[in-house]
Amino acid sequence: MPRSEDFADQLVDAIRERGTPAVVALDPVYKHLPAELRGGAAAGARIPSRTEPSRESHPAPNDELAAILEFSRRVIRLIALIVPAVKINSAYFEIYQSAGIDAYYQLVRAARQAGLLVIGDVKRGDVGHSAEMYAAAHLSDGAVSRFGGEQNPDAITVSGSLGSDAVKPFIDVARAEGKGLFVLVRTSNPSAASLQDAMLADGRKLHELLAGQVAEWAADTSLLGEHGFSSIGAVVATRDPADAAKLRAAMPRCIFLVPGYGAQGGRAEDFRPYLRADGLGAVIAAGRSIIFAHEDAEYREQFADRWEKCIEAACRRFAEDLRRLTPAAWQ
Amino acid sequence: MPRSEDFADQLVDAIRERGTPAVVALDPVYKHLPAELRGGAAAGARIPSRTEPSRESHPAPNDELAAILEFSRRVIRLIALIVPAVKINSAYFEIYQSAGIDAYYQLVRAARQAGLLVIGDVKRGDVGHSAEMYAAAHLSDGAVSRFGGEQNPDAITVSGSLGSDAVKPFIDVARAEGKGLFVLVRTSNPSAASLQDAMLADGRKLHELLAGQVAEWAADTSLLGEHGFSSIGAVVATRDPADAAKLRAAMPRCIFLVPGYGAQGGRAEDFRPYLRADGLGAVIAAGRSIIFAHEDAEYREQFADRWEKCIEAACRRFAEDLRRLTPAAWQ
Repeated sequence: MPRSEDFADQLVDAIRERGTPAVVALDPVYKHLPAELRGGAAAGARIPSRTEPSRESHPAPNDELAAILEFSRRVIRLIALIVPAVKINSAYFEIYQSAGIDAYYQLVRAARQAGLLVIGDVKRGDVGHSAEMYAAAHLSDGAVSRFGGEQNPDAITVSGSLGSDAVKPFIDVARAEGKGLFVLVRTSNPSAASLQDAMLADGRKLHELLAGQVAEWAADTSLLGEHGFSSIGAVVATRDPADAAKLRAAMPRCIFLVPGYGAQGGRAEDFRPYLRADGLGAVIAAGRSIIFAHEDAEYREQFADRWEKCIEAACRRFAEDLRRLTPAAWQ
Repeated sequence: MPRSEDFADQLVDAIRERGTPAVVALDPVYKHLPAELRGGAAAGARIPSRTEPSRESHPAPNDELAAILEFSRRVIRLIALIVPAVKINSAYFEIYQSAGIDAYYQLVRAARQAGLLVIGDVKRGDVGHSAEMYAAAHLSDGAVSRFGGEQNPDAITVSGSLGSDAVKPFIDVARAEGKGLFVLVRTSNPSAASLQDAMLADGRKLHELLAGQVAEWAADTSLLGEHGFSSIGAVVATRDPADAAKLRAAMPRCIFLVPGYGAQGGRAEDFRPYLRADGLGAVIAAGRSIIFAHEDAEYREQFADRWEKCIEAACRRFAEDLRRLTPAAWQ
């Protein structure tokens, strides 16, 4: 029985509403923040003081985190009306330990309040009871665990390499609460091929075997939305168009989360194999090329130190560029 | 050039000193805590008040966490002189969000101060810069990242499924700071076989391919300790003795972290294939059967509500049972 309040439907609706499958990866790194925020954010100073060089180069972790939080909040406001979703990688917050986790949840909440769907890029994976704990901790809003709080992401990334029983606790939360998952199927890093493309005795590559499992989980009708997509999606980042097309065919119900636009070198046309003919079926993420656009000579020339203008312009261009992959009907 | 201050040497020394490869998995779950601590720990009460039934059954998260913290500190004290190391799974703390992370680091510190080696069972895995962030966040004590703090574990578990460049940032921290890694090679969950035992075109199982990569990383002499083991180890939990023996041969320099003693059904003899003839080469973990021994009828009969006695007795029996796998020379 299709449902209307599940993640897949929400994501498809948001993609159509914004007219683009572009998703911003919010992975903030202190040293790349605009100068205005570095060293002065916590104190409210606009320009770093030249009398405090050591503080400027090595502020206390809490000052860094305050600057990151302020920056991220502003980025969320800038992108909220342009893209359907934001992806937040917890690694960039875990480095600040408990204060960082607090910041992560603040941003998840801020993004949801700004009308963005939120993908928590946590890549968790464990077995048995530990997997249940992770599912409750990172995905549940309370129906499954009363500690999940109300600020968890709409969807998270999870590892699929430990087998189906390791993913089941996450699927259970997704089903119970209308949340989503993106299972890592094929990553984009240089040495991913050494394992993920390993040739199996049956002639398939390993990632095809995993894709088959994900397709099976996604075939569960209780996870299927009205638009025909499952709330169980896949992270797919191969640069081989043939592999991409094969994966698209192997996981017809899955929405793909595809990194690699911009800084990682991908361009709009490269992502067409991930989409169905109707322009749906994937969200495509860009990170540094958007949120650090103020470091890009082209934007600096146009906007100088007005870093928010740089980020907004880069985000608009990103969204527009991917819009060409979508059908005229919903542009 | 072998070093004396690296994780592999520290672990081998600690195993010899305690005369056992037994490691306690500290994965605390509120509902399994001794009654004495449930509902009353935060307020210092020894017996839960019968006038507060709702609080007893559903205490606030912070009260639960306070009880978990108190319980865990006491467990650490009980086991510190019996076993060489404790494994702490972050999932059980992440469910309490930032307060839980704070508790996790408090326990890592407490265990290190009690003389235990600490394995952070975080199972992180990501690519590129995100992997560097995780390595700095969860393994570094400061030489690599000034935010790692001084309370990180001596070693952590990491996913190996994304390829060598995803593991490299963790290896770099291990090398720079004398820390250790346990790369997930073969897990023990029921459906692990579906992927990890997938048959490759060259006749090997997938986990053998991964084992070969881990062996390659472990062959790096800069990670090799004086006892001949690398600080790059592996999580290996197959129940097939033939697979275990193959993995032992495939990763001669690796110390294995093997879960599954006790609650998961394993007995001492089952773990012999993981060890070298000299009794070294693996640590074997037990969790619930030790830390929740106060729920075990046998121990209750002997010690009634003296839960610390139950845990201590279970831990001693666990350590003794595994001692039989070690040579007489260092018993």
